[in-house]
Parts: sequence; C-alpha cells; structure tokens
Amino acid sequence: MEMKKIMNRADDFVRDTMEGIAAAYGDKVTLLDGDHRVLVTGYPVAEKKVGIVTAGGSGHLPLFLGYVGEGMLDGCAVGEVFASPSAEKMTDMIRACDRGAGVLCLYGNYNGDRFNFAMACEEAEFDDIETRQVIARDDVASSPAENADKRRGVAGIVYAYKIAGAAAAQLKSLEEVGDLAERALANTRSMGVALSPCIVPKVGSPTFTIPADQIEIGMGIHGEAGIEVRPMMTADEIAEVILDAITTDMPLSTGDEVSVMVNGLGATPLEEQFIVYRAVHRRLADAGVSVVMPHIGEFATSMEMAGLSITVLKLDAELKELLLAPARTPFYTNLNK
Amino acid sequence: MEMKKIMNRADDFVRDTMEGIAAAYGDKVTLLDGDHRVLVTGYPVAEKKVGIVTAGGSGHLPLFLGYVGEGMLDGCAVGEVFASPSAEKMTDMIRACDRGAGVLCLYGNYNGDRFNFAMACEEAEFDDIETRQVIARDDVASSPAENADKRRGVAGIVYAYKIAGAAAAQLKSLEEVGDLAERALANTRSMGVALSPCIVPKVGSPTFTIPADQIEIGMGIHGEAGIEVRPMMTADEIAEVILDAITTDMPLSTGDEVSVMVNGLGATPLEEQFIVYRAVHRRLADAGVSVVMPHIGEFATSMEMAGLSITVLKLDAELKELLLAPARTPFYTNLNK
Repeated sequence: MEMKKIMNRADDFVRDTMEGIAAAYGDKVTLLDGDHRVLVTGYPVAEKKVGIVTAGGSGHLPLFLGYVGEGMLDGCAVGEVFASPSAEKMTDMIRACDRGAGVLCLYGNYNGDRFNFAMACEEAEFDDIETRQVIARDDVASSPAENADKRRGVAGIVYAYKIAGAAAAQLKSLEEVGDLAERALANTRSMGVALSPCIVPKVGSPTFTIPADQIEIGMGIHGEAGIEVRPMMTADEIAEVILDAITTDMPLSTGDEVSVMVNGLGATPLEEQFIVYRAVHRRLADAGVSVVMPHIGEFATSMEMAGLSITVLKLDAELKELLLAPARTPFYTNLNK
Repeated sequence: MEMKKIMNRADDFVRDTMEGIAAAYGDKVTLLDGDHRVLVTGYPVAEKKVGIVTAGGSGHLPLFLGYVGEGMLDGCAVGEVFASPSAEKMTDMIRACDRGAGVLCLYGNYNGDRFNFAMACEEAEFDDIETRQVIARDDVASSPAENADKRRGVAGIVYAYKIAGAAAAQLKSLEEVGDLAERALANTRSMGVALSPCIVPKVGSPTFTIPADQIEIGMGIHGEAGIEVRPMMTADEIAEVILDAITTDMPLSTGDEVSVMVNGLGATPLEEQFIVYRAVHRRLADAGVSVVMPHIGEFATSMEMAGLSITVLKLDAELKELLLAPARTPFYTNLNK
C-alpha cells in the first residue's frame, strides 16, 4: 500500500516540523539563533549545571527533540529524516548549553552521530569547554553480547536522558553525571518488533516490506534488519520473546526493581501497547521482579512504522531516586506518573 | 494491505487492555470492583466534589479512559471496540463517583451512549443521586449548522473534560459545572481528515478503503463517511480546509484567544502533526487570534487510522482559567504545558 504523508514539500519536512514545535512551545524551547536544526531549553537553568545534549536524525518524535526541557536535555540537534546533523550544528549547541561546568553528549551508537560528535567535541575544546561523550547501545538484537559495543541505541536512551538530567539538576559534576549515564545504560536493554515499514518523506514509498502475515523480530528504528522474520505472534508471545532476549543478556532476580518502557513505533494503537505491557508485567511479577514508573506510549518512533519495543532498566537505589525526580518538557513529564 | 493486530484473542482485546492499564497505573486508577469495563480514579477526591463521568467505545485511547485522574474525570465506562458500554455499567460508575454533590455525565453524541446514559441516570435517581447529562457535538463535518444537534462528538470533548474537571475541583455545584461544560462545548468545533482505515479486532480487516492518492475530509472517528473525498492535499491545504469549515461555523475575530488541538488519529507521525500545527498557528496569527496552551499529539484516536483532526476552543476569561488549572492522569497532564 502506498502511504501518504501530511506535509508540504518533502525538502521542508524538518524545517516545517521545527517551526511547528517553536510555534507551539516557544515559551519552553527555542530554535538556537533561529536555526531549524537546533533546539535549546527555554526553562531556567542554574549556573554551573552540567549541560546535557543529544543529536540524531529526524523522524523519531518525541525522540530526540522532545526531551529538551527541565530535568532532561538542554539541547538537541537534528538532521534530515534518519540522518545525522552536522558537526557544526553540534558545536553551536554545545557552546550554547555550557554553563561553565561542561557538557555531556549523550547519543545513540550510529556512525554519523559518532563521527560528528567527535569533531564537535574537539572544536568545543578550543573554547575551553569540557565535554564527555556517552553512547547508548541498548538494542540487544543488533549485535551479540560478545560484540555489545556494536549495538545500536534505541528507546532506552530516554531513561539515560532522565537519569543524567536529574543528576545534572542536582549540580553533580560532569564526571558524576557521565558516570551515572553510563551506569543507567549498563543497566538498560531494549528490543523491538516491526509489523510494517515506514516512509522517508524524500523517498515517498516504503524502503522495505514485511509480508502481511509476518513479524520482524529485532528490527532497528531505521528499518535495520532484525534477527528473524516469523509468522505473526500473539501479544503474549511477543512479550515472551523480547523479555527472554533481554534477560538472557541482563539477568534479573527475585527482589529486583526495574522500570519498563513499552514503546510504540508509530502506528501501533495504545491499546495494543497495554496488552503487551500486561504480559510483561505478569512475567516479571512471576519472577519476583517489581516495576517502578512504567512508561507505555510513544517515546521513540519510526514515523508510521507499526510495531513496538520493550526496554528494561534495572534499578538500584540511586538510579531509582534519579528516575523519580521531577522532569518536564513539552513532550514528556513524569509529574503524573 | 492486510494490517496486523498485536493482541491475544480478539474477544479479550478490551479485557487485556484494561488489565494492562490497571497493572501499569493501579496506584492512580482502578477497575471498579475488578470490573473490566469501568475505571475510576484512585487520586484523592474531596467530599462534595461533583463527580464527572464519561463512557464510550474502546479503540480511541487515550480517549476515553485516559482522562480519569485528578482535575478531569472521576470515572469512565467502556464497551467493546467502537461500541457503547451497558447502562448497568454506567449506573455502577455513577454510584461509585457520587460524593453527595451529584454526577455530570459528559459524553459524545452517539445513539448507544445516549440511550444507555439516559437509562443509567434514571436508575441513579432511585438512589437519590442527582445527575446531569451534557453531550459533545463538536464535529462540524457530521451535520450542517441548521442540524447542529445531530453532530457527533470527537476530540473536542477532551477540552470539555478539562474545563468541567477544573470547575468541579473548585467545588462548584452540579448546575455550575454542567453550565461550564455546555459553555466550553458551545465554543468548541472540530473536523478531521483520514488517509487510511482502521481495523476492529473482531473484524480483522479494514471496514472501508480510501484510495492511495486520496484523502477523506470530515470522516468520523469510527470511519463514518465524511463530506468529500479529494486528491491528497498538502499540510497547509489541510489546515486551510479545516480552519475554514470551523470558522465558518464559529467566527473568530482579531483579539480572540483560542486553544487549538491537533489530534493524531493513530498512524500519523507527530512530525506531520506539527507541520499542520505550524499552518494553523500562522493562519490564526494572521487573523489576530492568539493560541493558549496548544495540544498536539494523540488525544482521541481510531486505532491505527492515519489522519488527524483539528479542534478550536474559543476562550473567555473563565474558560481560560479553567483550561490552565492543573490536571493530571496517567495519560494526560497540563503541568508541562
């Protein structure tokens, strides 16, 4: 099926999105110097707070832009749909988000983002801005455990934003904030399933297909191939397959506390996400594992892709306190959770 | 294209969804007596606060269940996907949500819901519970102005929940809360466009089709036929057509303040919703109309339908104050807006 995009010119997709966000929430987040690729917080920021920034391709809202606000990110640079922003934009953002305590660059394990952030951090050093890079690699399907450093970052990075953002709000040092982000990511695993492709605006048609009666296990948020294609499964089976993969990689024991994110990839109804959460919750409860502040909804999407991912964040006392600390952005709050 | 549902048995779709919600948010909202069709608030409720309840078919999350919480709804009954719950469930809910000041039943203009709420309110009278019914009819596409009482309720009802919920939180009387809900709805207009159908779980295939290069203007949230089918339009054109229809029915003048909701119907990416919001914001600004607390996202969906609706709520000083008053539910908060 040909799918239709609600847009003007495909070339203006990202600019128009950014202008829409600025028009809606200009009192909370702003385009840096009017730039259509960099969003910075408009909430008050304490002097000497470590800045936290991210970057990535467009097409994943609320990731990445949606976490700029209070208690999470100070800035976000985006590129075209599914493409990294330039090192120059990243440098501008790092400069804007430094309050004298350095800047944590927290982003997913994609070559373009890595390459450009490395250049941007070198550039920032010329201005005597201290930086640290922490890279999310939570997708267990993207590489086996022995090559875990090759894994992609997916929805689990939202937990890292939350933990690092809360640590920065407590005016911890760049080293402490970076260490906590690393610890959150070391305790975070994700895996997804896809039922249908998505459409990049400038392409205009699906870039791959999934047969009508099948489901792809472990697909990435840009349509990167998964582990296997299977006949369509029930919600309970999907929860089982994903939780098995996650807990094989990161064992859980009776008495453990975790947060769980069931993340819709775009077209999957919220009802179906709750049907999967029900199964996840039951399986964890049966294993004596309790869930703190579950996140169910769309946190990291792939345009109109159907499917979902599950993320488990294993908590310790400090990570739990930082998870529960207040945060708000135009797209996210934990004040109602 | 055959679309796939992430579920277990189709017959258990609503039960499994409700169990998922209760598992995730059991400390905030609870199943009434374990009933899989009635959700009531678990937040503290003041004595003598007017209760506010709603009901409707499943398949529209976060509508209707998602607005049960604090500062909005006290209870919600749901039926099967796209079907009204029974009068008996509504009666149970009304009883549970009465704190001695009566209960406002605030729901959309659908025959099943009207018929069952009328019976439920009669039943509640036997228990000396005062009730009032206020019915949302915000969809301008569903009937011409001379038959406005035949119009369907769509996403605009969320604004009525917000206004009535804030009034009830101020311990206003049932008459006052009902009058404010009526006033909010008198000032609310919506219209939607659809690009693709959705799938009712027990049916398993799309119940209608929209050609690949076309868009249906004015389609209802259950797939009710719209005003016309046109060749696919740009985001700017969609904003223009909908705003023209809304402002023909409810004229706006320079200096007016409104809230605007751009509501994704399910499969439409958030990026595309912001591209439409950009156009709406510009057109209103050009007319000297300013926007207060815009809502962009999924507030009332039709499963995996692609498309969106636009709602305009014309504010006066009192409606604005009630809109801005704090509210939180597991699915909604205005604390970050």
